[in-house]
Amino acid sequence: MMQKMGSLHRPLISPPPSPKQATNHTFLVKSCRLVGFKGSPGQLKTQKSNALKCGFSSSFKFSTSSMAKNFNESDEYSLSSPSVKTDEVILLDFWPSMFGIRVRVALAEKGIEYQLKEEDLRNKSDLLLRMNPVYKKIPVFIHKGKPICESSIIVQYIDEVWKDKSPLLPSDPYQRAQARFWVDYIDKKVFDAGRRTWYTTGEQQEAAKKEFVEIIKQLEEQLGDKPYFGGETLGYVDVCLIPYYCWFYTYETMGKFNVETECPKFIAWAKRCMQKESISKTLPDEKKVFGFCLDLRKKFGLE
Amino acid sequence: MMQKMGSLHRPLISPPPSPKQATNHTFLVKSCRLVGFKGSPGQLKTQKSNALKCGFSSSFKFSTSSMAKNFNESDEYSLSSPSVKTDEVILLDFWPSMFGIRVRVALAEKGIEYQLKEEDLRNKSDLLLRMNPVYKKIPVFIHKGKPICESSIIVQYIDEVWKDKSPLLPSDPYQRAQARFWVDYIDKKVFDAGRRTWYTTGEQQEAAKKEFVEIIKQLEEQLGDKPYFGGETLGYVDVCLIPYYCWFYTYETMGKFNVETECPKFIAWAKRCMQKESISKTLPDEKKVFGFCLDLRKKFGLE
Repeated sequence: MMQKMGSLHRPLISPPPSPKQATNHTFLVKSCRLVGFKGSPGQLKTQKSNALKCGFSSSFKFSTSSMAKNFNESDEYSLSSPSVKTDEVILLDFWPSMFGIRVRVALAEKGIEYQLKEEDLRNKSDLLLRMNPVYKKIPVFIHKGKPICESSIIVQYIDEVWKDKSPLLPSDPYQRAQARFWVDYIDKKVFDAGRRTWYTTGEQQEAAKKEFVEIIKQLEEQLGDKPYFGGETLGYVDVCLIPYYCWFYTYETMGKFNVETECPKFIAWAKRCMQKESISKTLPDEKKVFGFCLDLRKKFGLE
Repeated sequence: MMQKMGSLHRPLISPPPSPKQATNHTFLVKSCRLVGFKGSPGQLKTQKSNALKCGFSSSFKFSTSSMAKNFNESDEYSLSSPSVKTDEVILLDFWPSMFGIRVRVALAEKGIEYQLKEEDLRNKSDLLLRMNPVYKKIPVFIHKGKPICESSIIVQYIDEVWKDKSPLLPSDPYQRAQARFWVDYIDKKVFDAGRRTWYTTGEQQEAAKKEFVEIIKQLEEQLGDKPYFGGETLGYVDVCLIPYYCWFYTYETMGKFNVETECPKFIAWAKRCMQKESISKTLPDEKKVFGFCLDLRKKFGLE
């Protein structure tokens, strides 16, 4: 299984860094390979439907000029406090995926050096197909040659293996169960309602906006007056929820609504998270996500 | 919150025991309260659809004569090796729920004494509504007055709190991640495909049967030559998967197919599990589940 892994010792692909980013460990960003959609309108419909139901699933087809712009240049990327050999930790990912971003935030919080391998979801690598034969989806986290799939499970794994720095799950079993409950709630609710705010029109979109705000209100209530869902420090729920924040601009612009007016404490939490380098340097720019979604809407005839 | 809990110190409701069951601790089974469906046909359609999508959800309406038959008599119930005070551990449940059965199997494996409180899903108790305000669904596990929801999270909690006897999750983080992956797979796949084998007709049913067998084959492959998914002993995946086995008779009879011919090793695993008292005494009789489903099919006009 490790035979082909030598080819991964290449420059990394990563979200573009902020200008002020320090570069202790610098890698070049490789160009992102983009492909056009091929298939009949009937195929398109099925693929679109499946892709959006399942997130960044095996049938998710895309081709965006904004993506090309973002990645057709060299860029620098930094990871602080490396604690393991680079070749031991690999992440197969796709840059706007909130599920992939979860893993990247967890790795950044722990200061774990890793290889980020951007997948072309139209032409998946042999490595992805071998490492996640059940779903063939990103993110896949490969540690010492062994794959772990499903983002919430990967984050728990990372927290259990690198447990000394920045613990994410609480040590108390009841608190741990509560954290798992809310991550499960996020998985069941936020992606789907969020998607419908920018990917539907008319009544469907109106319903989605209302539903999305109700979900965020529920989460805001759960946050209460704590600085983070994890309490005084960033925790499992924070890591699994904050990646959606870089999609809020898309949801709000395309849906013509504003989350902050209804959920100011939630947005204050998100801004507090963004003050942490592990998050601000990991989340892609919200305008880039918007460009990506705009192209998707055009492709599927919604514009 | 604990003020009203005194009312729970009542006779228990439980799956009927097998005749050979020893009774170290005996409780009487309370009659199950049953109600008819009320609402317009439009409501019925929505409620039916939601109920079946979500499992035993807040909108699941039912009224079955077979259930009345099962519970309109006193019966005995035994729990071995009690290790905590009865009033500290309460399970809100509904007898045919595979999600509730998971929790009961885990408690039986650990030898934990508990109060089983059967819910009438048409007229939910105040306790359920207070303890699971987000989903208002069973099962809810209440430990020392605090609720834990979502069956896979409850089983992990039980394993973490009562860790000395019959550990369910592996101690190795990678193996633990793999166990979580397969429980997540079961949650995403088995309930929905299983439901469609008995709740649909024609082409939909044919597709469901094929899909169900494929899912079981995938699980069988994962089992390999091990006696249990957990290896030499029952583990987290076993506990979360075996409750479906008491539904197989319904799936196979209504769907007119046979899982064993295609997945003999899987059925051998299920029969191996059924040799354990923690499982055989916990799972409801497959014919009772069948009767329950037959009544549901009639109610919703499929018979």
